[in-house]
Amino acid sequence: KNYRIALLPGDGIGTEVMEAAWPVLQAVADQQDFGLVGDCLPWSCDYYLEHGVMMPPDGVEQLRAFDAIYLGAVGLPETVPDHVSLRELLLAIRQGLDLSVNERPHRLLAGVTGPLRTDKAFDILCIRENTEGEYSGAGGRVHQGGDLEVAVETSIFTRAGVERVLRYGFERARLRSGKLASVTKSNAQRHSMVFWDEMTDRVAADYPDVQVTRYHVDAIAARMITHPETLDVVVASNLFGDILTDIGAAIQGGLGFAASANINPVSGGPGMFEPVHGSAPDIVGKGLANPLATLWAGALMLQHLGEAAAAKNLMTAIEKATASGAGTPDMGGSLSTAQLAQAVQAAL
Amino acid sequence: KNYRIALLPGDGIGTEVMEAAWPVLQAVADQQDFGLVGDCLPWSCDYYLEHGVMMPPDGVEQLRAFDAIYLGAVGLPETVPDHVSLRELLLAIRQGLDLSVNERPHRLLAGVTGPLRTDKAFDILCIRENTEGEYSGAGGRVHQGGDLEVAVETSIFTRAGVERVLRYGFERARLRSGKLASVTKSNAQRHSMVFWDEMTDRVAADYPDVQVTRYHVDAIAARMITHPETLDVVVASNLFGDILTDIGAAIQGGLGFAASANINPVSGGPGMFEPVHGSAPDIVGKGLANPLATLWAGALMLQHLGEAAAAKNLMTAIEKATASGAGTPDMGGSLSTAQLAQAVQAAL
Ligand SMILES: CC(C)[C@H](C(=O)O)[C@@H](O)C(=O)O
Ligand SMILES: CC(C)[C@H](C(=O)O)[C@@H](O)C(=O)O
Repeated sequence: KNYRIALLPGDGIGTEVMEAAWPVLQAVADQQDFGLVGDCLPWSCDYYLEHGVMMPPDGVEQLRAFDAIYLGAVGLPETVPDHVSLRELLLAIRQGLDLSVNERPHRLLAGVTGPLRTDKAFDILCIRENTEGEYSGAGGRVHQGGDLEVAVETSIFTRAGVERVLRYGFERARLRSGKLASVTKSNAQRHSMVFWDEMTDRVAADYPDVQVTRYHVDAIAARMITHPETLDVVVASNLFGDILTDIGAAIQGGLGFAASANINPVSGGPGMFEPVHGSAPDIVGKGLANPLATLWAGALMLQHLGEAAAAKNLMTAIEKATASGAGTPDMGGSLSTAQLAQAVQAAL
Repeated sequence: KNYRIALLPGDGIGTEVMEAAWPVLQAVADQQDFGLVGDCLPWSCDYYLEHGVMMPPDGVEQLRAFDAIYLGAVGLPETVPDHVSLRELLLAIRQGLDLSVNERPHRLLAGVTGPLRTDKAFDILCIRENTEGEYSGAGGRVHQGGDLEVAVETSIFTRAGVERVLRYGFERARLRSGKLASVTKSNAQRHSMVFWDEMTDRVAADYPDVQVTRYHVDAIAARMITHPETLDVVVASNLFGDILTDIGAAIQGGLGFAASANINPVSGGPGMFEPVHGSAPDIVGKGLANPLATLWAGALMLQHLGEAAAAKNLMTAIEKATASGAGTPDMGGSLSTAQLAQAVQAAL
């Protein structure tokens, strides 16, 4: 069996981590007798400078032909404003393919020392709403540039949008510890977040076996640092999920580790798999980028394609490598991006 | 000289920490030959149950007569929904008195072990917008309870609102390291946060001596954990400041430490001083609440009243107590709320 994968290296270290990770994925596939056929799409800030758009007008349609999308990172703020590059490529794909769930596992890999003193378990699965809410893009500005200027940003939450991500979270909680944290800020945001709380209660009624706790986003952000062992599956809105998963990344050792699966649990279609980190223009071309987040995202992709054994092999190889002390400088190691990826491949 | 202080113990442990802290503040004042005359206002969830409102209709007007407001904590979610109790008391005061700046210092007190492994400095001053933005309260719901339901929450940022908090941040940065971090999420929120970025540039032009760095909120949340020593003054919107200051609290040892000054730097009037933590109904009546955040908030109040020597004495006494190992259970100690406050008083 051959899978068609859209490769979107994007910008900055996005291209470096993809170049390092892709051969490892090919090797995993070889071992399990399936094929990964990559099709590289050059959509990026460079593409924007040449064509005036981040991707072709039918970009989202083109992507539908693939089995999955594997993305590096997007953004080159010196050249293209972030709100153009990200909204018109990364967010456009998430929204265009209705990838309503962004699933991000956070745990300490074998051999990795995190920033927290505690030696208690750190193993959180964050389920983030991925297509609406605070990222709706609705709003505008009046009196622009003048003294009376007002900027308005409107978060829009739909019942179907909130329900599907909550339901996904409850399903995941069932497969894990049976504990789910639902994140809001309903003490300050009385429309959207009170609605989210109500939807949590409604969906919870279908999952009497799952124990639900509500947290305000500020409180759970602190709790991830002070009592991470009390959390398991965390379901949050687009913005809150964004923030909490960077905290999760920090606690698991840094942005170099955190992986992410953007999926459409309702109507299927290709998912998009990417590291949580950005394009990090400051370290481009130095071989400093950590490829593990991208490799881990590759494992999430294999899992989602139904290749569970391959996904497991890859995760085992990643942890063999980290346990042996292999690491890029952000991990306190001395390997380059390519070398760390090779160490993982050697551990397969 | 006598200062008139409005005491708002509020709910839950709010009353416990206020009861413990207030005598210590009196003692500090005695030493410096000024007086603190407290007037206790019972506005709280209990008040709501009796009167149907969290405070009298002229509550905000009543507060204007005081030199400062000293608040414990608000909220009893079992009885009054958080969006009612908080929005109609705490947030109503912040907005009603135009307390546009919420200043929150985060640093490790002497003798306190934080959750981070690093022994690098942790000393961040967060300046949070406090009257608009994501807490504007604008929005609504359609098709309520039905399949088509949509909830809308609108963030409103005004030029004057953003400018005054940024300006305050730049002034503070000048008095500290000369470094300022401005926090947005302009890669995803293209109206409000792009506006905030532009305002940062505009105000920065008046402070060429201050070095400004822009961070996305997710990135700075992670950075507070991975590289806190690279941050000093952090200016953020209402919601982002809320989240980042709970992270700051966690890193400085927990919510039991973090103090907060709500002030009106434009037209003056009474400020409101409060611990960052909530009413913690789960630990009420057990003497478990840490009074240090409230004492620290008291020091911020004294500072703001112009009693710098008293503020300094109080902070010195707090750190003498913590350095000697005095602590409540959240600090690994065995003192009660009252006992820890007494230990601080004894160290005066
Ligand atoms: C780059 C940015 C728009 C994006 C987001 O906020 O979703 C990123 O931070 C992420 O978490 O995937
Ligand atoms: C209780 C809540 C409304 C409040 C806020 O979000 O401002 C609190 O978390 C704080 O930080 O002071």
